[in-house]
Amino acid sequence: MPTTVYDPPALAPGTLRVYPLGGLGEVGRNMTVFEYEGKLLIVDCGVLFPEEHQPGVDLILPDFSPIKHRLDDIVGIVLTHGHEDHIGAVPYLLKRKGDLPLIGSGLTLALIEAKLKEHRIKPYTLTVKEGQREQVGPFDLEFIAVNHSIPDALAVAIRTPAGLVLATGDFKMDQLPLDGRITDLRAFARLGEEGVDLFLVDSTNAEVPGFTPTERSIGPVLDQVIAKAPRRVIVASFSSHVHRVQQVLDAAAANGRRVALMGRSMVRNMTIAEQLGYLKVPDGVLVDYKKARDIPDDKIVYMSTGSQGEPMAVLSRMANLDHEIEPGPGDTVILASSLIPGNENAVYRVIDGLTKLGANVVHKGNAKVHVSGHAAAGELLYCYNILQPKNVLPIHGEYRHLTANAKLAQETGIPAERTILGENGVVVDLRDGVATVVGQLDIGFVYVDGSTVGEITDADLKDRRILAEEGFISVIVVVDSATGRVVTGPEIHARGFAEDTAVFEAVKPKIAAALAEAAKSGVRDPHALSQIVRRTIGRWVNQSLRRRPMIVPLVIEA
Amino acid sequence: MPTTVYDPPALAPGTLRVYPLGGLGEVGRNMTVFEYEGKLLIVDCGVLFPEEHQPGVDLILPDFSPIKHRLDDIVGIVLTHGHEDHIGAVPYLLKRKGDLPLIGSGLTLALIEAKLKEHRIKPYTLTVKEGQREQVGPFDLEFIAVNHSIPDALAVAIRTPAGLVLATGDFKMDQLPLDGRITDLRAFARLGEEGVDLFLVDSTNAEVPGFTPTERSIGPVLDQVIAKAPRRVIVASFSSHVHRVQQVLDAAAANGRRVALMGRSMVRNMTIAEQLGYLKVPDGVLVDYKKARDIPDDKIVYMSTGSQGEPMAVLSRMANLDHEIEPGPGDTVILASSLIPGNENAVYRVIDGLTKLGANVVHKGNAKVHVSGHAAAGELLYCYNILQPKNVLPIHGEYRHLTANAKLAQETGIPAERTILGENGVVVDLRDGVATVVGQLDIGFVYVDGSTVGEITDADLKDRRILAEEGFISVIVVVDSATGRVVTGPEIHARGFAEDTAVFEAVKPKIAAALAEAAKSGVRDPHALSQIVRRTIGRWVNQSLRRRPMIVPLVIEA
Repeated sequence: MPTTVYDPPALAPGTLRVYPLGGLGEVGRNMTVFEYEGKLLIVDCGVLFPEEHQPGVDLILPDFSPIKHRLDDIVGIVLTHGHEDHIGAVPYLLKRKGDLPLIGSGLTLALIEAKLKEHRIKPYTLTVKEGQREQVGPFDLEFIAVNHSIPDALAVAIRTPAGLVLATGDFKMDQLPLDGRITDLRAFARLGEEGVDLFLVDSTNAEVPGFTPTERSIGPVLDQVIAKAPRRVIVASFSSHVHRVQQVLDAAAANGRRVALMGRSMVRNMTIAEQLGYLKVPDGVLVDYKKARDIPDDKIVYMSTGSQGEPMAVLSRMANLDHEIEPGPGDTVILASSLIPGNENAVYRVIDGLTKLGANVVHKGNAKVHVSGHAAAGELLYCYNILQPKNVLPIHGEYRHLTANAKLAQETGIPAERTILGENGVVVDLRDGVATVVGQLDIGFVYVDGSTVGEITDADLKDRRILAEEGFISVIVVVDSATGRVVTGPEIHARGFAEDTAVFEAVKPKIAAALAEAAKSGVRDPHALSQIVRRTIGRWVNQSLRRRPMIVPLVIEA
Repeated sequence: MPTTVYDPPALAPGTLRVYPLGGLGEVGRNMTVFEYEGKLLIVDCGVLFPEEHQPGVDLILPDFSPIKHRLDDIVGIVLTHGHEDHIGAVPYLLKRKGDLPLIGSGLTLALIEAKLKEHRIKPYTLTVKEGQREQVGPFDLEFIAVNHSIPDALAVAIRTPAGLVLATGDFKMDQLPLDGRITDLRAFARLGEEGVDLFLVDSTNAEVPGFTPTERSIGPVLDQVIAKAPRRVIVASFSSHVHRVQQVLDAAAANGRRVALMGRSMVRNMTIAEQLGYLKVPDGVLVDYKKARDIPDDKIVYMSTGSQGEPMAVLSRMANLDHEIEPGPGDTVILASSLIPGNENAVYRVIDGLTKLGANVVHKGNAKVHVSGHAAAGELLYCYNILQPKNVLPIHGEYRHLTANAKLAQETGIPAERTILGENGVVVDLRDGVATVVGQLDIGFVYVDGSTVGEITDADLKDRRILAEEGFISVIVVVDSATGRVVTGPEIHARGFAEDTAVFEAVKPKIAAALAEAAKSGVRDPHALSQIVRRTIGRWVNQSLRRRPMIVPLVIEA
């Protein structure tokens, strides 16, 4: 179902234009552009992780095309929090223009700065915190504390003469968060009183009924599992989940164990979090990984990455006995993390591998060692009721999540025509309290593969899928350029099936015959001849082998 | 972690040998061989569905190697029930020997006979039912009713002078099944009194705490959803789930709607189930699909396949508007089915597609429209306690499931050394009430791809994965056989990346230079020359393009 693309009209004075470039119809690469009087404000700039039908792709970026010729108009990039799906594409945008100012909380900016350092970019930054107000170009910004699965997350209220917009970023409403920093419902109430004209709201868990349990509920479970563990404990989680790591540190300390952090991103992020005061390390609990082996097995906890079954991460390598820590009987492995849809097979392969080695594997399927970072339906209803926004644009989610979120809005009394279900590239104009869809930009996927950005196309991925499903056959024939006679070949090679090339003996005479006939009719063009080869072997392989491999014919003149 | 393979000793007289060829360490291709005094009994012969790292594979069969030279010794194949993971490989075994007798319940045999008909095989069959006893070669078989997500499932007790074995097949213990046919705990108790020497038991849900809810709990939910549906209702489920379809028929009838069955397997299976009396069709409810379009939208239910997101099934095609039924606003789609791990992305793509079209999609994530077909931990504990088996061999499951099941057995007092955690090919000898692991056969994966069986190897799949991740480069050079001089080429083509072949101009001189140097040193062998080409371009592509595609060099003499 391709979306109908159509250009928006020229932006009228006094009107705010909003167009998300990513995060609608997908979980990831969140990015929304706000335009007013010729100036652009960007909120978030994240990456999307590929699915199995995108083989070889490392990352997917938002499509910058609608703004790539307008980089000079950008007055700032607000980053709501430090997760990859909100900051991961910043280096790729800054490579186009290095001095675009980044605006975010202390932790968020520290995380993106560490990331940019790897790309050798030193950004311009403006550190803000909750309650702060900043004028950025024509945009009057107010930052509001929200609670999420990483500390220091912010929602942003954007005021222009066109009205008041509130964008939540990712959030939930844990009423007892570890750091006491709750989503600021008083500020939401105040904005509600003022009148929110457009509400951009996280949809990830809109389908989940009820309320997300408090992060605090995980501590006692970790404590019990660690208390009972006879030997080593290995905990895997996301490398940015400061509060989860905090609870592991606390549970380890309570049980007289020390903790060794493993994995580059885990060490880097927790070092930043500790330096900035977000992680409170109990005295003497952390131990350098290299010194951990001197500690008795029942006195150590390893904190690692790899909770999503990533093949190169610490946990997968342990499960494959490809790491110096080799789990065995008596060891306990805790996956204190979500299971992101699409990763199931990889994660279960890791769990099975560890189980086979004799380890006791504790995961969200058999213990309460994870809570989500996103507001469930019950929490979203609170938001709608306290804000009573005039217009709603659900963001951050697959289409089913956006739809569920729009329904929740409607249940609180917001008219259906004021809840906008859009896709990436939808153009929404806000004026006089009314948000209207005025256009649909053509938004594609931008694939990062190795060191290339945007070179791999959807056609390449289709080729890759065919190669994966069916393999390929290459056929090489050398012909005399004057007579068209076959000099050498056909040489036929296949990969991905039928390693025994003897099967192709049957088709060689057919190819030779087809080429001879073509030569007789005067065909000399190598491209035309190679098409004849393709047709001949293609038909044969379909009929005799019942396959449809990629066929790569090559006719060379000699 | 490759399993250490070792041959079992010659089978001693009076000893029963048991070796599973599939279903241990995986969910699928269940098959176990029982050997006594030179005769073989097979229980189940199913298929496994491939994962994403096995591209292009249609099915995976059990490895028949350990029995392929002993087909004349097989006295029977017991099929516990009619699911693909228990009967799907029968056609492939019967192609090796067509007169192997199949033993099973009425519905099970009817389903496999329909399947075999497509393969043009008419099997020898022995229909049995619960309570029945049959001597098959040296095996004294007793069949016991079990409840599962397909009617007419049987467990089988196998008596030989070596002892009494009970194999459950797939089962659960719904105490209020639709057909009133419960798992026969009285028979289990009687066998327990007699003394069960070895218990082969379904592990699929051993990690799930508590009890599987009754199938009956789904009826009211279906009824409510259908009652509220303003337009068409489309229900997708497994095509063999007779009781689920029964509840859809009943809910439709209660709401004054008619039901059209869609999809070849759905129509075929339900026709069989109705003929044999397992499906009770309310008067006048069924309507031929072709006539369904004449029925008003609010009076029709379509019952289809495709609940797992299979791309060619009815539901996926509807979601892609590639079917004559085009769902839209007001239509309701119910996925009354499990979400098999690994299928999440495909299923969610279908859900998102349907949601985008405006349909209301009801699935197990947002309504209680599915219960599992397997016994959860609580039910398994009942079995262990009533049977008190001397030895336990958990089957049917990934390694984590088998491990969880063994733990449950141990919690009821069965010693750890009497619970056998094995992999496919484990050889267990039973004698004097003691089951001992005596060998480990070398068991591989047998891939069905198109019309070929066992031709695709793990090496082919590795090639396919490389092709999928990185694409390939082919390099063709024609050299003079006498001088080794390059006559034509190098011609370089790539697929799966870098469609613009201009990038390769940079490496062509390097290849030519490498070949010239080789020619100077007297190298003439085309294979040796092609290795030089491979190394030259391989190094270049890694360094300049940061890629590791498959490289297919070809040096042709002319």
